[in-house]
Amino acid sequence: MTDKHYALFEEQQKDRGIDLEAVKQQLKALTIETPSWGFGDSGTRFKVFEQEGVPRDPFEKIEDAAKVHEMTGISGSVAIHIPWDKVDDYGQLKQHAADHGVRIGAVNPNLFQDDDYKFGSVTNVDPAVRKKATEHLLECVDIAREVDSKVLSLWFADGTNYPGQADFRKRKQWMRECLAEMYNALDEDMRMLIEYKFFEPAFYHTDLADWGMAYNLANKLGPKAEVLVDTGHHPQAANIEHIVAYLLDERRLGGFHFNSRKYADDDLIVAAHNPYEIYLILQQIVAAKYDSDSGVALNAENISYMLDQCHNIEPKIPAMIRSITNVQSLYAKSLLVNHEVLQKAQEENDVLAAEEAIREGYEFDVTPLLHVVREEMGVPVQPLKAYKESGYGEEILKRGKGGASW
Amino acid sequence: MTDKHYALFEEQQKDRGIDLEAVKQQLKALTIETPSWGFGDSGTRFKVFEQEGVPRDPFEKIEDAAKVHEMTGISGSVAIHIPWDKVDDYGQLKQHAADHGVRIGAVNPNLFQDDDYKFGSVTNVDPAVRKKATEHLLECVDIAREVDSKVLSLWFADGTNYPGQADFRKRKQWMRECLAEMYNALDEDMRMLIEYKFFEPAFYHTDLADWGMAYNLANKLGPKAEVLVDTGHHPQAANIEHIVAYLLDERRLGGFHFNSRKYADDDLIVAAHNPYEIYLILQQIVAAKYDSDSGVALNAENISYMLDQCHNIEPKIPAMIRSITNVQSLYAKSLLVNHEVLQKAQEENDVLAAEEAIREGYEFDVTPLLHVVREEMGVPVQPLKAYKESGYGEEILKRGKGGASW
Amino acid sequence: MTDKHYALFEEQQKDRGIDLEAVKQQLKALTIETPSWGFGDSGTRFKVFEQEGVPRDPFEKIEDAAKVHEMTGISGSVAIHIPWDKVDDYGQLKQHAADHGVRIGAVNPNLFQDDDYKFGSVTNVDPAVRKKATEHLLECVDIAREVDSKVLSLWFADGTNYPGQADFRKRKQWMRECLAEMYNALDEDMRMLIEYKFFEPAFYHTDLADWGMAYNLANKLGPKAEVLVDTGHHPQAANIEHIVAYLLDERRLGGFHFNSRKYADDDLIVAAHNPYEIYLILQQIVAAKYDSDSGVALNAENISYMLDQCHNIEPKIPAMIRSITNVQSLYAKSLLVNHEVLQKAQEENDVLAAEEAIREGYEFDVTPLLHVVREEMGVPVQPLKAYKESGYGEEILKRGKGGASW
Amino acid sequence: MTDKHYALFEEQQKDRGIDLEAVKQQLKALTIETPSWGFGDSGTRFKVFEQEGVPRDPFEKIEDAAKVHEMTGISGSVAIHIPWDKVDDYGQLKQHAADHGVRIGAVNPNLFQDDDYKFGSVTNVDPAVRKKATEHLLECVDIAREVDSKVLSLWFADGTNYPGQADFRKRKQWMRECLAEMYNALDEDMRMLIEYKFFEPAFYHTDLADWGMAYNLANKLGPKAEVLVDTGHHPQAANIEHIVAYLLDERRLGGFHFNSRKYADDDLIVAAHNPYEIYLILQQIVAAKYDSDSGVALNAENISYMLDQCHNIEPKIPAMIRSITNVQSLYAKSLLVNHEVLQKAQEENDVLAAEEAIREGYEFDVTPLLHVVREEMGVPVQPLKAYKESGYGEEILKRGKGGASW
Repeated sequence: MTDKHYALFEEQQKDRGIDLEAVKQQLKALTIETPSWGFGDSGTRFKVFEQEGVPRDPFEKIEDAAKVHEMTGISGSVAIHIPWDKVDDYGQLKQHAADHGVRIGAVNPNLFQDDDYKFGSVTNVDPAVRKKATEHLLECVDIAREVDSKVLSLWFADGTNYPGQADFRKRKQWMRECLAEMYNALDEDMRMLIEYKFFEPAFYHTDLADWGMAYNLANKLGPKAEVLVDTGHHPQAANIEHIVAYLLDERRLGGFHFNSRKYADDDLIVAAHNPYEIYLILQQIVAAKYDSDSGVALNAENISYMLDQCHNIEPKIPAMIRSITNVQSLYAKSLLVNHEVLQKAQEENDVLAAEEAIREGYEFDVTPLLHVVREEMGVPVQPLKAYKESGYGEEILKRGKGGASW
Repeated sequence: MTDKHYALFEEQQKDRGIDLEAVKQQLKALTIETPSWGFGDSGTRFKVFEQEGVPRDPFEKIEDAAKVHEMTGISGSVAIHIPWDKVDDYGQLKQHAADHGVRIGAVNPNLFQDDDYKFGSVTNVDPAVRKKATEHLLECVDIAREVDSKVLSLWFADGTNYPGQADFRKRKQWMRECLAEMYNALDEDMRMLIEYKFFEPAFYHTDLADWGMAYNLANKLGPKAEVLVDTGHHPQAANIEHIVAYLLDERRLGGFHFNSRKYADDDLIVAAHNPYEIYLILQQIVAAKYDSDSGVALNAENISYMLDQCHNIEPKIPAMIRSITNVQSLYAKSLLVNHEVLQKAQEENDVLAAEEAIREGYEFDVTPLLHVVREEMGVPVQPLKAYKESGYGEEILKRGKGGASW
Repeated sequence: MTDKHYALFEEQQKDRGIDLEAVKQQLKALTIETPSWGFGDSGTRFKVFEQEGVPRDPFEKIEDAAKVHEMTGISGSVAIHIPWDKVDDYGQLKQHAADHGVRIGAVNPNLFQDDDYKFGSVTNVDPAVRKKATEHLLECVDIAREVDSKVLSLWFADGTNYPGQADFRKRKQWMRECLAEMYNALDEDMRMLIEYKFFEPAFYHTDLADWGMAYNLANKLGPKAEVLVDTGHHPQAANIEHIVAYLLDERRLGGFHFNSRKYADDDLIVAAHNPYEIYLILQQIVAAKYDSDSGVALNAENISYMLDQCHNIEPKIPAMIRSITNVQSLYAKSLLVNHEVLQKAQEENDVLAAEEAIREGYEFDVTPLLHVVREEMGVPVQPLKAYKESGYGEEILKRGKGGASW
Repeated sequence: MTDKHYALFEEQQKDRGIDLEAVKQQLKALTIETPSWGFGDSGTRFKVFEQEGVPRDPFEKIEDAAKVHEMTGISGSVAIHIPWDKVDDYGQLKQHAADHGVRIGAVNPNLFQDDDYKFGSVTNVDPAVRKKATEHLLECVDIAREVDSKVLSLWFADGTNYPGQADFRKRKQWMRECLAEMYNALDEDMRMLIEYKFFEPAFYHTDLADWGMAYNLANKLGPKAEVLVDTGHHPQAANIEHIVAYLLDERRLGGFHFNSRKYADDDLIVAAHNPYEIYLILQQIVAAKYDSDSGVALNAENISYMLDQCHNIEPKIPAMIRSITNVQSLYAKSLLVNHEVLQKAQEENDVLAAEEAIREGYEFDVTPLLHVVREEMGVPVQPLKAYKESGYGEEILKRGKGGASW
């Protein structure tokens, strides 16, 4: 890749009426949060293949995340999961992050690994369990405060495996009660992101099964509650970009958990199986940023982009770097759409022209653009290559096997 | 089937603590509306196989529906579809129905067969088309008034086939605007049922793609707007009974379009492929009827049960009769669940006992019960057999081929 | 349930032309194998909820399986999984089974939990791993010989997570080579059942992804190789009964792993979510038994029925009993179809009559029939109730928590 | 796009070790057949929106196809559908094609639009209908001979809508008998391509439901029978490239019907919804071309690439052009993979490197390459633009509305 490439690219885009400086601005403003748990061991119900060099504690997870940020320049925050990342002194964790050039991002409560939650957490028929779950939620608000995080990211495994097992409607009400308590405990500038999931680990019904249930709940709780879209949590063939546009229109799109899947919630490297889907999602966001409705535009600007992936068989740090550059690359492409051309075609019901307009950005090779952006940001032009050459992968092998896991 | 059978059945249910008189009451109160278009010819995009004896006009459709009601005793209303059932004098149509022992039920606008709707009706980028669509909606309100119907049943084919083809959010707003106009034209005792569909005939996005979008729209329109659940309009594996319970809890479940499918919106005879699914849906409704919350109970009592099926290869009238007796039979079974036993098991998280409690009703052979109920209602004990013996099927053959069609 | 019920049932079936003695004969001949691993702890990738009383070793697993057989009378064999059920002396294990009134059934190799198999077992690019895997397969043939089992049941987790990760065609050839070695080691009266799976734990491609791949492989190996159908291993909406009929027609249907699922390979209690599907599968088998082609009829008689379930949240032994009685009950219903009536309707393309003929068996309450059959077999009339009253569930609690697991 | 672009592209590929001349050779050798019916009107079961300018007879369809070929240079053959394209004199049709610079490609029998086929064609329980169907198949062989086509492309709509409706196994045997008759009538250099489909228009079972059924049938018929893969005929999430590789390994991959779908068999412009899927399919073919096994390589060279699409709402000729250039573009990308790099990564189980190697080709912008290839072929550099400027679209409007349809 040389200057010649970028010069040609620049010329090409200029001819199309694209303001490349604005595009670069947007690209530099993009941030994608990494999940602390993504650096630990994970697997399927059949087997967790332990990897050498996996971080042994929350501090080492942050170090790995910081390495990813050093390579990419756009992943400066790390989501934590409680109690997986429980420490005695959260101030110390926050400082450790700062020392490594990153910060703590979303705080994720864990309400699915305690024996008490076998039949549900905030939806459990037993009020004592619901109370315990709620207290954990409140504890997470406190932790967020301590680590200076403004985002609580809530995923509930709650659901049932058999018809008749539980009362759907009672559980719906219990969940709302518990979350209302948590909501009331939030600071004014905190946000609560509510995630939904089609299935797993519950195999008959999931209490928050789709965007509609998460949205309706957020709506009832208040403006600080928003919906979190995990790209792997939908039925087959769901049109996720439509859901994203819908939530933006309602000003309730809180954030993303990016990952890729072919079948279920496979949690693979984002965009590895259907990159166009991520591109079309990002399209909707870019369009919303330019909406004349300031509420919609504001929502589009405030989305939390996070990864939620399991690197079961591939090394975790480079997989995370690739995930980030994949999103970055698709975001770059989505910024190359000429919205005037698109809008004109839509207004004329010119299906072929409209389809071409939205796809046009996707067809470009944005490598020259990304290289320049990275240069200007002072990060390696080829993040994955730089990581390989950094020796970090070898260095951490001394941690041995048997590091942190789910 | 003899008196002995019923005597044994009665004893058995009494032993289980089931109030059989109440069950019979409920069974007699059940009504299932037939769709006028289900008596006409229909097919797939590949071929419509015309049948002999298909009604040639709305009047003959009503006669066929009346025959179904004569056999079943629980299908005393007929949904109409405008313009398929357009007549010069709706008073005459109403009278024709009354003369045949039935009445006009839901009025269904058609916003997908006019060339103007190629790119959408109430979501069309062209305001003139939206206006035309809205006027058709208003016309249907007028027709409903003329035929004394209180239900407007709305399905929109609106959607797109390609990424970029249209602006999701603008279409969402246009739809709301058009429906608000219609909503305002409703009489106080009218209801507007909003249907959603996962896909088809739009193959990239459908403007009302799921219950969440229909519910949110109903919510914004006001209390006269409710959600219509077509059992064939969901992604594979969707838990429909959960959606049903959810809508009941929000007091927004307006009605059903019953049919069966294995793949897409196959519109087959209800319960022909997975009868347990319909049973579990009915379970949620029965449970809601006994809810301590009067709003929920009232919603459960006011649901409109309708069929929406296409009898492409089987004779239409007997297929309709079977569909109705299938629902009736599953409803009878769902009334045999002992809710105290179920609730106790749920409270104890006794998964196996709870699953057994809900399945118990399903396992009974309710034929003796249905025979007695039908006897008491004065309708044939075996509706399908009675129909075959009635000679009606042969009589209508004189209508020839080439009757009403979509 | 009383004699009156059975008398009425008998009369009813006699009137329909059903030979109830033949039905009872068939019911007594049905055997359903339980899986040793189904008595151990299992869970999802998120959490294994350990249960009290779980067997701590293969011997205790056999005791639990024997208890199930004691209650049902039709589950006299137990599948084992190597190395989960590895013991020093397989003769002793076999004797232990015999002492408890059961025998060892299918031997299942495990080729997915050794670190070496991270990238495949018999399809691994490394010949040393393929050799290791093949040796394990051969070891299992030896074990089968030692425990007097005639069935080797093969499931391969082999697959990949990412495009490009491996060469599909090379892996196909490697698998065939390894299995040919195993095939050659089989005794004349042994059978090799080849299972397929749509996905999981591989999330991009699975080497044996569908019945076609398993069938083609079996075909190439020889007559001792057959296909194993796990009801949870298909794409959504797959018509499993069609596949079953197809394999019967090719005389290659080896056996079943029964379980229930709504979404993925959920491994729930068989028939808990869509009982009609299991009924329709059994229908195809019953029809094949009466086929004029003796090869087809023979195949239908020699099918191995096995359970493969995970009781993650419900107690395992009663869940196993219910699974068995669910299959038994659906099998009883499938034996009540009048095949002459069905065939006549099919020959006349009378869709409604044919559908009624096949569904008719399903609608009966077969409880009286099953009670009589069980009485005649000398097992408890109500297996689950008898189990609860046996005190066995309490007795085994002394095993504590932390028993055998995957 | 300028010479500079290509110069840079050339340099870049040279550096990667790609032989660009070989790539261009392959690109020039690619041919994609258009379907005559794709130029006619089509729609959904809800509505066919007629377009102006649609060809009124087979001759005009060929003219449109010829126009597409004039623009693309790689679509020189047209598939025909009998009886949609029935003419008195096939010699004249062949000549008409030749006069317009194209030739007749695959001959497609139609066995689903005659009233006799309501319950099946070659699987009909009535021998007279099977005979009629077989005769139509034989007629198509004759037609193929007359038009000098070597390919018979067979899709059967045969299937059922309800459990019990028909005997799966008898139908399987009938189909084989009928196709054997046809097979025997083929000339030595003719091929019979057997297509499969998951569902539609049959909604319970389809006689040829998946690749395994089509493959097994082809296998039994003989070497002139091969499998046809329609990209829209699979269950959700099916790994089509795996099936493609599998069939190549068995030397039975006959051809493709390309199109795109998100839900069912939506028949949209190929690659419009998930272009990466088509790329991965083409990858498998490219890899097979270089296989050391000459049988596999030969199969890969002899694949018939065909479109099978319905342009329901977009203008048909430009939609066809775009479909062809989409495939061409993805094929170009798939030729840019460095197979040595890929193979090395696979051999080392380096998941990330392997995934990168296969994706690398996809990321390039191949516009400069395609421009040069087109220039060298003497066709318009921008086919769609050239078509728009050609005035052909306006010219054909005089045909009016109401042209050929399904």
